[in-house]
Amino acid sequence: MVEKTRIGIIGLGYWGPNLARNFDELEDAKLVAIADLSTERLEAMKRRFPDAKLTTDFNEFPSMGIQAVAIATPPKTHFRIAKACIEAGLHVLVEKPLTLKQEDSETLIELAREHDRVLMTGHTFLYNPAIREIRRYIQEGELGEIYYIDAVRTNLGLFQLDTDAMWDLAPHDISIANYVLDSYPDSVMATGGSFIMRPYNLHDVVYMHIRYPNGVICNVRVSWLDPNKARKITIVGSKKMLVYDDIEPLEKIRIYDKGVSTPPLTDTYGEFRASYRYGAVTIPHVSWHEPLRIECQHFIDCINNGTNPVSDGLAGKHVVEVLEAGSRSLISGQEEIIERAPVPV
Amino acid sequence: MVEKTRIGIIGLGYWGPNLARNFDELEDAKLVAIADLSTERLEAMKRRFPDAKLTTDFNEFPSMGIQAVAIATPPKTHFRIAKACIEAGLHVLVEKPLTLKQEDSETLIELAREHDRVLMTGHTFLYNPAIREIRRYIQEGELGEIYYIDAVRTNLGLFQLDTDAMWDLAPHDISIANYVLDSYPDSVMATGGSFIMRPYNLHDVVYMHIRYPNGVICNVRVSWLDPNKARKITIVGSKKMLVYDDIEPLEKIRIYDKGVSTPPLTDTYGEFRASYRYGAVTIPHVSWHEPLRIECQHFIDCINNGTNPVSDGLAGKHVVEVLEAGSRSLISGQEEIIERAPVPV
Amino acid sequence: MVEKTRIGIIGLGYWGPNLARNFDELEDAKLVAIADLSTERLEAMKRRFPDAKLTTDFNEFPSMGIQAVAIATPPKTHFRIAKACIEAGLHVLVEKPLTLKQEDSETLIELAREHDRVLMTGHTFLYNPAIREIRRYIQEGELGEIYYIDAVRTNLGLFQLDTDAMWDLAPHDISIANYVLDSYPDSVMATGGSFIMRPYNLHDVVYMHIRYPNGVICNVRVSWLDPNKARKITIVGSKKMLVYDDIEPLEKIRIYDKGVSTPPLTDTYGEFRASYRYGAVTIPHVSWHEPLRIECQHFIDCINNGTNPVSDGLAGKHVVEVLEAGSRSLISGQEEIIERAPVPV
Amino acid sequence: MVEKTRIGIIGLGYWGPNLARNFDELEDAKLVAIADLSTERLEAMKRRFPDAKLTTDFNEFPSMGIQAVAIATPPKTHFRIAKACIEAGLHVLVEKPLTLKQEDSETLIELAREHDRVLMTGHTFLYNPAIREIRRYIQEGELGEIYYIDAVRTNLGLFQLDTDAMWDLAPHDISIANYVLDSYPDSVMATGGSFIMRPYNLHDVVYMHIRYPNGVICNVRVSWLDPNKARKITIVGSKKMLVYDDIEPLEKIRIYDKGVSTPPLTDTYGEFRASYRYGAVTIPHVSWHEPLRIECQHFIDCINNGTNPVSDGLAGKHVVEVLEAGSRSLISGQEEIIERAPVPV
Repeated sequence: MVEKTRIGIIGLGYWGPNLARNFDELEDAKLVAIADLSTERLEAMKRRFPDAKLTTDFNEFPSMGIQAVAIATPPKTHFRIAKACIEAGLHVLVEKPLTLKQEDSETLIELAREHDRVLMTGHTFLYNPAIREIRRYIQEGELGEIYYIDAVRTNLGLFQLDTDAMWDLAPHDISIANYVLDSYPDSVMATGGSFIMRPYNLHDVVYMHIRYPNGVICNVRVSWLDPNKARKITIVGSKKMLVYDDIEPLEKIRIYDKGVSTPPLTDTYGEFRASYRYGAVTIPHVSWHEPLRIECQHFIDCINNGTNPVSDGLAGKHVVEVLEAGSRSLISGQEEIIERAPVPV
Repeated sequence: MVEKTRIGIIGLGYWGPNLARNFDELEDAKLVAIADLSTERLEAMKRRFPDAKLTTDFNEFPSMGIQAVAIATPPKTHFRIAKACIEAGLHVLVEKPLTLKQEDSETLIELAREHDRVLMTGHTFLYNPAIREIRRYIQEGELGEIYYIDAVRTNLGLFQLDTDAMWDLAPHDISIANYVLDSYPDSVMATGGSFIMRPYNLHDVVYMHIRYPNGVICNVRVSWLDPNKARKITIVGSKKMLVYDDIEPLEKIRIYDKGVSTPPLTDTYGEFRASYRYGAVTIPHVSWHEPLRIECQHFIDCINNGTNPVSDGLAGKHVVEVLEAGSRSLISGQEEIIERAPVPV
Repeated sequence: MVEKTRIGIIGLGYWGPNLARNFDELEDAKLVAIADLSTERLEAMKRRFPDAKLTTDFNEFPSMGIQAVAIATPPKTHFRIAKACIEAGLHVLVEKPLTLKQEDSETLIELAREHDRVLMTGHTFLYNPAIREIRRYIQEGELGEIYYIDAVRTNLGLFQLDTDAMWDLAPHDISIANYVLDSYPDSVMATGGSFIMRPYNLHDVVYMHIRYPNGVICNVRVSWLDPNKARKITIVGSKKMLVYDDIEPLEKIRIYDKGVSTPPLTDTYGEFRASYRYGAVTIPHVSWHEPLRIECQHFIDCINNGTNPVSDGLAGKHVVEVLEAGSRSLISGQEEIIERAPVPV
Repeated sequence: MVEKTRIGIIGLGYWGPNLARNFDELEDAKLVAIADLSTERLEAMKRRFPDAKLTTDFNEFPSMGIQAVAIATPPKTHFRIAKACIEAGLHVLVEKPLTLKQEDSETLIELAREHDRVLMTGHTFLYNPAIREIRRYIQEGELGEIYYIDAVRTNLGLFQLDTDAMWDLAPHDISIANYVLDSYPDSVMATGGSFIMRPYNLHDVVYMHIRYPNGVICNVRVSWLDPNKARKITIVGSKKMLVYDDIEPLEKIRIYDKGVSTPPLTDTYGEFRASYRYGAVTIPHVSWHEPLRIECQHFIDCINNGTNPVSDGLAGKHVVEVLEAGSRSLISGQEEIIERAPVPV
C-alpha cells in the first residue's frame, strides 16, 4: 500500500475549502493542515476537518511533515508563496492563474526542476471528462480542420479587486483552447468596458481575440455584468461543429454533423455555389466525474510516479502569456504579439 | 378615401417577394409592377401576382404610373438604382445597407431633399414591436444608465459573394443599437476570420466593437459559420438588464431586475463590497405584428403625409458609416474613427 | 402531361384557406371553386384566389366540372356533406375527425367503395416527414419492443362550441399512435375537467388512457387551458426511447439510446439489480416539407393512380372509434371497450 | 442558550446520509448516533461523522440519551419503527410515505398525542421556499379560483422492489397539492403500465386523477421509465396560471398573466366569444435555502416549542389515503372514494 501523501492547503477563499474536501476524501492523501491569514476562516473549518491543524503561517508546514501544498490564495501572492514552498522542498499545486507575470512562471518552472518537485497549475477543465473527450475528437480529426473557437463566460458577479474579469474568467477558456488545440497562441487583441469597476480602473467586460498558428482564431467573451450565466464554447471545424455547454447538467457536448464546402474560386457570381451539408446532431454520453477530484488525484499520482502533470508549470505559463498580452492590448488598443523564450530542452 | 399609391418592386432575390406580398396586401397601395434582370424569376411571380406587370427594365416604371419603388437588389447596385429612381421622381425604399459608401448615402439624401421625395432604408427591426418597446424602456430610463450592448447573429449560411458576413448581418444590429440608444458611434474596431470564404477574401466570421458617446460600447458578433442560429441582443443598464431573443416565438424580451451597485473607491481590499440586487424576471407581452408589414405601411404613410420615415436616409447612412469603418478596421487591425460631415440643417 | 384535377373547397374556417392555398399551388390540381355559408368569408378569399368561383352552395360543384373536394366544415357536418359529395361522384378529402360516429364512417367507406371514389381523412401528421421517420424506426425495431406512448397537446385556446378539447385535439395523437404502432386500440379510459366550458357541458381538459394489443398503452393529455403550448410525444421502447417535439423548429426528434434491462425475478431484495444503459442522444436530420402540401399531393396522386390513401376512410374510422369510446368513458367514469365490426374483405 | 436536541438517524439508504449531514450542521441539534442493519453502510459513515455512535439496533437509542429520531428506512418498516420510537419516548420524523396504511398513520398520530411527542412526516417540498411562495399566491387569490393542477415527475430509474413508481414518486406531488390547495381529495382514479417491473407485478408508469372538493382536479403522471427527467407542476387558475419547474436551477416559478373569460351561455354558435387575456410572464426571485435544512430545523423548533409541524402526522396520513386509494384503483380500474374517519378534535 502506498503511503499517504501529507497535504497542506494555503488559502481559504472560495476555492480552498473545495481543495480541502477533495484531498480529505482521497485514499492516498492525508489533509494535514490548512493555512490562512484569517483566524475566523480557519475556525470555520474546524467542524468540517476536525483532524487538520490550522495555522496562520504556512511556513510551519514542513515541520508538520507536509510533503505537498495546494495554493488557493489571491493571484498576486501565487508567485511568492509557490516559490517559498518549492524552496522548502514541497510539491505545489497552484490555482490559476499560475502567476501574474510570464517570467515568474518561468522562475517557478526552473525552481521546480532544480528541486525535483512537481509543479502543477489548477486548470480544472483539463481534468473535465467532457473537455478531454473534445480534445480527443479534435486530435483524431473528427471535426476536420479547426477553423475557430468562440467562448462565452458570463454572469452577474463576483467582482474582485485584485483582478479584472479577464484574469478572473478567461484562464479557463485559454487553458481549454490551448489544450484541445494542442497549440499556443501568437497574438492577442483585447477590448472591453469598465463600468461597475471604473473607479478601480478594472474591466468588468472583456472581449479577447486570440490568434493561433495556421489561421485558427479563438474569441473569448467574459463578463461579470451579464444577466445570464453562460459557459459555452463553440468549436467550428471543416467537417463538424461542436458546442460545449458547461451549464447543461447532462447534455454538455453537442456535435453537429454539418458544414459547408469551400466553393471553388470563380470569376462570375452566377457560378457560386456553397454546398451545405446538414446531418444529425449527436449528444455523446460522457461518464461524469468531478474534475477537481480527478485533478487532486492526478497531483498525488504525479508525486508518487515522478511524472509531469497535464497542467504543468508550462501549461500554466502559456495561459499567463496570453493574459499578459491581453492586458497590454487593453491599454494599447492594438493586437499584441506573444513573445516566448525558447523552451529549454 | 385615399388614392392607392402605385408601387413597383425592383429585385427578386430573397427579400423582394416579401416586399411584393406585403405591398400587395396593403389597403392603400397597389402593386403595379415587378422588375428583375432574370426573366425566370419574373415568370415565377406570375401565378402569385397575376395583376402585376413584369419587366426586366425598371426604367419603364414611370411610364406605368408608378409613384414609389422598393429596391431589393444586391447592395452594390443600391446607389445607382436608387439615384435613378429619385431622379425619375419616385419615392424609394432601399433595402439595407442603403449604399456601400457613406458619401453615396449623403448624395441620395441630398437628392431626395431636392426632389422632395421620401427616401427610406429598409431597416426592418425599427418596425419590430419588440424593438420599439425596448427603445421606449431605455428612453424612459427603466434600465438606468446604459453600460453596454452585446449582439450575436449567427447561423450556418447563407454565404454571399458580394458582401462579407459583416455587411450581410451586422446592419440589423447596428441599426437597432443606433435606434434604441438614439445615438451614433464614434469608432469601430473589427476583427474576424476568413475560412470558407478565404478564396474570395471575404470574412465569414466578424466581431465588431463599437464605441458610442458616454462610454457605451456595443459588441456585435456575426457569423455565417456557426452550428446554432442565434439572434440575441443583451442590453446591460445600471438598473436593469434586458435580453432580446428574436428566435423565441413569443417570449422575445426578458427584463432582469438585477444589478450591482458601484462600490465606493477604497484603499483596502477588506472594505470592498459590491452590492448585488436580484429581483424578478419579467417577460412583457408585446402584441405582435409583422415588422415588414408595418414598414411597408409606414412608407406609404410617409408618402401620403409628407413626413420623414423612422428609418430615413440619415438612419441608413449612420449604419453605412459603421460598416465602412468596420471594413477599414478589418484591414488595419486598429480601431477606426468614424468621421461625419456635419448634418446640414 | 396529366390533366389537372379540378378541386373544390368546402368550408372557410381555420383550415379551409390552407387547403385552398396548397391545392392552388400544386402542379396537377386546379382550385376551381370555394364554398362557404358566409358570403363575408367568401368575399375575403377574392383577392387571394381571384380565379376561383365562390358559392354558398357546394351542390353547384359538379356543374362546375369539379372532380374532387376538400371538406373543412365543422365536424358535425362532415358526414352529411361527404356523403352528398361521394354520391355526386366526387372524390373527397375530409378534415379530421372523419365523422362523429363510427357507423357514419363505415357508411362513407362503403359509399366510396360503391362509387369507386377516393375517400381520404385529413390526418396531416401521417404526411409529416418526422412522423413517417418515427414509424420507420419502430417498424424496423430500432426502439425494440414498444412499451408505451405519452402524448401532450396543450395551449391556451381556441375554445370551440361544437366539440370538446378531446375531439378537437386528440385526433392528431390517436392518428399518430395508430400509424406508428400500425395497430388499433382495444379500450379507452378518459377523464377530465370542465372549467371554462362548464356552462356548455364540454371538457376543456381531457386525459385519455388507451390500451393497444400486447400491453402497449398510449396516454394522451389535451388541454385548451394551459399556459404552455406543447405538442410532445414520448415513445418508450425496450431498446431506445424517442421524443417528438413538434414545437421545435429543427430538432423535432430526439432518440435516447438508454434503457433498463428487466431484472430477473428473485425472492430476495438483496439480489435485485436493474441494469441501466445510458448512451448518446441522436437528433436525426429530417428533410422538412410542409405536411399539408404532401397530403394534398397524395390526394391527387391517389385519384390519378386509383390507389388507397395512407389516411383512408378506415384510418379515419379507427380514430373516430377511439374518440367515441373516450366520450362514453367521460360519462361512465369507466374504461370503455372499442367494438369493431369485422372489416369486410 | 437552548440545549442541543440529541438526534439519532435510522436507515442509511439514499436519504439517511442527507438527514445526518443536515442535523449535524444545525446549531441546536447534535447528531448522536446512526443505526442501520448493514455494518458496511455504518462503516462508510465513520469518516464523515466521526463523533456519531454507530449501531445496528436503534433500540439502543434511548440509552444514549437520544431525544429525537429521523427514520429513513424502507416504507414498509416505517410504522413498526416509528411506533417503537414514540413508545420509547422519542420525537419522530418519518420519511414519506408515513406508513403504507391509513389506519397505521392514525395509530401513530394517536400514539404521539398520548406520549406528547412530535410526529412529523418528511414531506420536504412543504419546506421548499418556492412551494411556500406558490401556496401564498393561491391563498391570497392571486391566481383566482383554482381549476386544476397537472404534475409530471419522470426520469429513468431508480426502480425499487418494495414500492411501485406511484408510492415512490407521487407522495411529493400529492403533498404539494394538498398543501397549496389547503384541501384534501375525495377520490382517485389511477391507471398505468407495468413494463420493466412486470415480473414483480409493480407499475413503473402511473397516471393518477385526483378529485378535490369544488371540482378542482389534480393529475399526476409518474414514471421510472422516461428519457427525460421532469419535475413540473402546472397550476391553472381563473386569473393566472403558474408553472413550477423543479429542474430549473434559478427560474423555478413562472406566473402567466393570461386566461380566458367564461363565455356566457348562449343558444347560438354565432354569439360565442371566448375572451382571451394575454399578459406578461413573471419569474419571481425566490431566495433559496435547502428545503431539507429548513425541514430539519423545523423539527427541532417544534420539539423545543411544543408546536405542531407543518407536515405533521395528519398531513402524512392525508397523503397515504390518496396512495391507498390509488392502489385500489389500479386494481379495480375504477375511481375509488377516499373514506376518512372524522378527525377527533
